[in-house]
Amino acid sequence: MQTTIDWHDEIEGAACRLAAHRGAYLRETPLWKLSPASLGLPAALEAGGTEVWLKLEHLQIAGSFKARGMMNRLLAQPIPAAGVVVASGGNAGIATAAAARALGVRCEVFLPGVSPEAKRARLRALGAEVTVVGEAYADALAACLARQRESGALLTHAYDQLEVVAGAGTLGREIEQQGGLPDAVLVSVGGGGLIGGLAGWFGQRSRVVALEPERAPTLFRAREAGHPVDVEVGGVAADSLGAKRIGDFAWDITQREVRDALLLSDEAIRAAQLWLWKEMKLAVEPAAALPLAALQTGAYVPRAGEKVCLIVCGANLDPASLA
Amino acid sequence: MQTTIDWHDEIEGAACRLAAHRGAYLRETPLWKLSPASLGLPAALEAGGTEVWLKLEHLQIAGSFKARGMMNRLLAQPIPAAGVVVASGGNAGIATAAAARALGVRCEVFLPGVSPEAKRARLRALGAEVTVVGEAYADALAACLARQRESGALLTHAYDQLEVVAGAGTLGREIEQQGGLPDAVLVSVGGGGLIGGLAGWFGQRSRVVALEPERAPTLFRAREAGHPVDVEVGGVAADSLGAKRIGDFAWDITQREVRDALLLSDEAIRAAQLWLWKEMKLAVEPAAALPLAALQTGAYVPRAGEKVCLIVCGANLDPASLA
Repeated sequence: MQTTIDWHDEIEGAACRLAAHRGAYLRETPLWKLSPASLGLPAALEAGGTEVWLKLEHLQIAGSFKARGMMNRLLAQPIPAAGVVVASGGNAGIATAAAARALGVRCEVFLPGVSPEAKRARLRALGAEVTVVGEAYADALAACLARQRESGALLTHAYDQLEVVAGAGTLGREIEQQGGLPDAVLVSVGGGGLIGGLAGWFGQRSRVVALEPERAPTLFRAREAGHPVDVEVGGVAADSLGAKRIGDFAWDITQREVRDALLLSDEAIRAAQLWLWKEMKLAVEPAAALPLAALQTGAYVPRAGEKVCLIVCGANLDPASLA
Repeated sequence: MQTTIDWHDEIEGAACRLAAHRGAYLRETPLWKLSPASLGLPAALEAGGTEVWLKLEHLQIAGSFKARGMMNRLLAQPIPAAGVVVASGGNAGIATAAAARALGVRCEVFLPGVSPEAKRARLRALGAEVTVVGEAYADALAACLARQRESGALLTHAYDQLEVVAGAGTLGREIEQQGGLPDAVLVSVGGGGLIGGLAGWFGQRSRVVALEPERAPTLFRAREAGHPVDVEVGGVAADSLGAKRIGDFAWDITQREVRDALLLSDEAIRAAQLWLWKEMKLAVEPAAALPLAALQTGAYVPRAGEKVCLIVCGANLDPASLA
């Protein structure tokens, strides 16, 4: 079905819908243009005129790009009296709860027993009703879907819904408005909502590069298999990139628009995360460090004069983990 | 002597000198324009069209605005073979060491016995020679001055040198180039190097507001006395705003250009610091939170339609302190 979607139109529609809520809700996050040297990259890039742009989307409301997609979903659909339901204790759940609070609607979040109390407390602080069900994420998801069928509440999915992907795509539109067209966009991939939106916006106009942890390779394995497959996930970025399977929307868009899917080691991701704190004073989660890790390890080498945009996607972390 | 200084000229000169080193050394830090609501401020401000700008100078190299002044000092003066000396384990010492490393010159830092090992290690990692002398800061300063006389090394002062104040002033020039002229600029004051530079740049064109912790009121007490006086310092921001006396340059400039000197409680400063982390994902030191504290407590109330710029001045903190 997705092949008939005009993503440019969907993203323009999302941007229009969200514009009324910018400021009071969504933020236009800074785009920071830097020289390669200031990111510890080789002098040869400096001499060649390469520019590195950091899109500081971890400063978005609720601490990640997810706020764009969740708010777009809530604004695009009628919200029943039962409100919204979601099964996620991570960025998607937090973004859904924050969007629901901003709109004054009920929000119920389903979490498995393994979820940490800190996450439950944060969701409750955002006004969400938290329901703990079963042991694994699959149990929480099943309960969430059952509640949705019973109550008619609006379901938000962490990455595989049209409005969620289009909302994420507004990030690409914002980058282009702020800084012009980048030559390349480096972005981490979990379920693929973000790369789906970015590739939907930029298409072939920019080279969108997919980055995944070796231990959470949903797109990489799908490409090997020729179709989305379940993968084992783990490692330092599993908290936000730990989807077990690439979403159908993201699979469709990336098959048409994305050539490069690169894997990065946990060590490289963690080193880039700590570098961003120590040298740049940006406190970000591991998932947000993959783009810099790709440059620092040489997994991605920009051409001379290239404008390469790194998506700094989230900051939901325990700050003590940076010490 | 200072009354004959043309600060606008000095700051233009500093900007020119530093421009050759931008990118490889200094960064142009983001200016982030936000609505009052996104900073948790009253809806009345929102309706009145007030804009809040955050100047994210804590993302400057070495984690604070100090890099501007120290690099300007090192570029403006001939550097002897003995290199540079400084007595500071805080932002000024770190910025001096980083600037010296960038220029490939020797740097010796004098610290008292009470300085924590973490600071010494950070300075050594920047290539500085660390000399621990005596118990109190005054002992380290005396040893630093003696060494300077003996070796002829270039001395950098944390805030009270012309090049240091002019370098800090380039921050005001950058804000105006990025976003136009703000109506008001809210800035924290320790020894006064930063407010000296900002008031030197903006003069009467913007309302520059001095903010100090109740427990480190160097400018406030000087105004009461009619001249700079030593004060007792302590509290949450003492690490970076703990100068005992306002600098002569800052005193002269602020007497002519700054009307408002406000005090803020440690509780308000700490609350604003935690708010900047929790809601904005900006990890900053207490000194950087005074401007937001002034707005959140109502100590400073912007007029309708006012563009008020908050200087987020530093990020030298233990991230665990935000948990």
